[in-house]
Amino acid sequence: MQAQHILLQSRPEGMPTADNFALTQVTLPELQQGQFLVKNLWMSVDPYMRGRMIDRESYIAPFALGEVLEGGAIGEVIASKHADFPVGSKVSSMNGWRTHYVTDGSDHTILPTTPLCESHFLGVLGMPGMTAWTGLNRIAELKAGETLFVSAASGAVGSVACQLGLLMGAKVIASVGSDEKAASLKAMGVEQVINYKTTTDLSAALRTAAPQGIDVYFENVGGDHLVAALDNMNEFGRIAVCGMIADYNDTTPSPGPSNIGNIIVKKLKIQGFIVMDHWEHYPEFTQQMSQWLANGQVKAEQTIYEGIEQAPAAFIGLFEGKNRGKMVVKLA
Amino acid sequence: MQAQHILLQSRPEGMPTADNFALTQVTLPELQQGQFLVKNLWMSVDPYMRGRMIDRESYIAPFALGEVLEGGAIGEVIASKHADFPVGSKVSSMNGWRTHYVTDGSDHTILPTTPLCESHFLGVLGMPGMTAWTGLNRIAELKAGETLFVSAASGAVGSVACQLGLLMGAKVIASVGSDEKAASLKAMGVEQVINYKTTTDLSAALRTAAPQGIDVYFENVGGDHLVAALDNMNEFGRIAVCGMIADYNDTTPSPGPSNIGNIIVKKLKIQGFIVMDHWEHYPEFTQQMSQWLANGQVKAEQTIYEGIEQAPAAFIGLFEGKNRGKMVVKLA
Repeated sequence: MQAQHILLQSRPEGMPTADNFALTQVTLPELQQGQFLVKNLWMSVDPYMRGRMIDRESYIAPFALGEVLEGGAIGEVIASKHADFPVGSKVSSMNGWRTHYVTDGSDHTILPTTPLCESHFLGVLGMPGMTAWTGLNRIAELKAGETLFVSAASGAVGSVACQLGLLMGAKVIASVGSDEKAASLKAMGVEQVINYKTTTDLSAALRTAAPQGIDVYFENVGGDHLVAALDNMNEFGRIAVCGMIADYNDTTPSPGPSNIGNIIVKKLKIQGFIVMDHWEHYPEFTQQMSQWLANGQVKAEQTIYEGIEQAPAAFIGLFEGKNRGKMVVKLA
Repeated sequence: MQAQHILLQSRPEGMPTADNFALTQVTLPELQQGQFLVKNLWMSVDPYMRGRMIDRESYIAPFALGEVLEGGAIGEVIASKHADFPVGSKVSSMNGWRTHYVTDGSDHTILPTTPLCESHFLGVLGMPGMTAWTGLNRIAELKAGETLFVSAASGAVGSVACQLGLLMGAKVIASVGSDEKAASLKAMGVEQVINYKTTTDLSAALRTAAPQGIDVYFENVGGDHLVAALDNMNEFGRIAVCGMIADYNDTTPSPGPSNIGNIIVKKLKIQGFIVMDHWEHYPEFTQQMSQWLANGQVKAEQTIYEGIEQAPAAFIGLFEGKNRGKMVVKLA
């Protein structure tokens, strides 16, 4: 049995390029008792993976050079010598960036049956959706009647954060990088959407969009977005820091926000979080989210690239704003 | 009855200078029923006052040009037509920067009798002491066995924060601007003290002083200190932001910390606070602190300037590191 793997060929300097990746063919071992063979159907590309491409200490180990990459994936068991994972089971794992693999099932979960496409377990029902839910509920503690600002608002996390914000009774202000993305968010009920690429003064644009100020900022971007948010936060505002994608490809560190003194003057709380630290709440999240999806109260957008050879382009596309909603790669 | 007032003559640009202030003589009105006359004994100068000299929206109104300044003061009632404030009472108020005044007693508190000099109600038993206590207990939630880093550690707030940190069972690392200040902190039991003025790489110095990393940073300074702290924070570290004195005299904003991405990677919480929002805990604080002072478990340092004409120099001295412990001006 042959599988295709995507390896980390070299560590990106700045923006990742196609030649940081290599596609190889590997021969899989024979199934042993207690193992099963998975054909991946979908794999995830996520901004956080950029951090794992750097050789540094972090909350998660760096990717090894010359080794197959890792990431969220949804697959189907196509041969099995494991009683708990019969043929036909759909499983989620961190064994992305490969077409097939043999496993003993550790860190594998069998997906529940749902009317939705199983790819959504990489998005709205998976890590990105849970990230949006955690940031608003457990980090920022958004309350009804407050004003929420979301950056990268049409991304996998941002688009869920906007919709949850509306469901929680907040006024939602969103920032995106194209008029098409803005229109899509407006169709979801977000009243004020800023296209930051056509805005010369983001802070002023935010003040116009939210003259009453911002109570919660869901931070996905960093850079100018953080400066604009700090300028416009209300007293006792909370910033849930999920990511700072603007900085991920910096070869030299960008200066931080020069208006950081607002932390004192406005008594702000800025808190970074990693969704894995909150995973004990996943059942609560998934129950609520399944309901919202079934009712049509949350809409799940996806951008789909096809074929494992497209995975590097899909990943690079995250930093070029090529996705609307969750970026996934269809492998089979 | 004549009083001397210090007025805000002009708004400082950058570092305040003597000619931003003017000393004037005013004639006080006759006492009416329900009023009393106070002779100030002590007045406070604090870094936060620099912010009130800027004409901007903040948690506290800016000082008005040409008007007498305000700030914490301790005075004695020397004439009274108010039943609750008999002659001889010692009162605390926000009516600093003047030698005498007439008041109806609103926002005045009669001081309890204590063996300590009443000036300490401007320092360790007042706003600065309560700020240190609040930052460690209610914002950073410092726990025994953790490592605490305190900047401006020989200042009015910092010196109390160091001592409370030790009492709470933390390992304390301090940063100060002179070897004399370092020696004074070491005498209080702080093991590791960095003189940042003779240190070329503050981040490396902090790593040497705290190879196990920092769990809580009590932020009084901003600038390089915040960068060094972010570099050295442990996972789930907390930064209680009390002040950023390094930035208060900036004429153009300094760049923020370029390593702010640590907020995500290390899941940090950074929270600004103003002690007034926590004032309901003042009785609890003052009970504990009185005990510690009586037992000698907390030592209260003061730097005293004498005479109201020295008040501007005392205030400017805060930004030149001229104080050890609380800077106060003795008025009578």
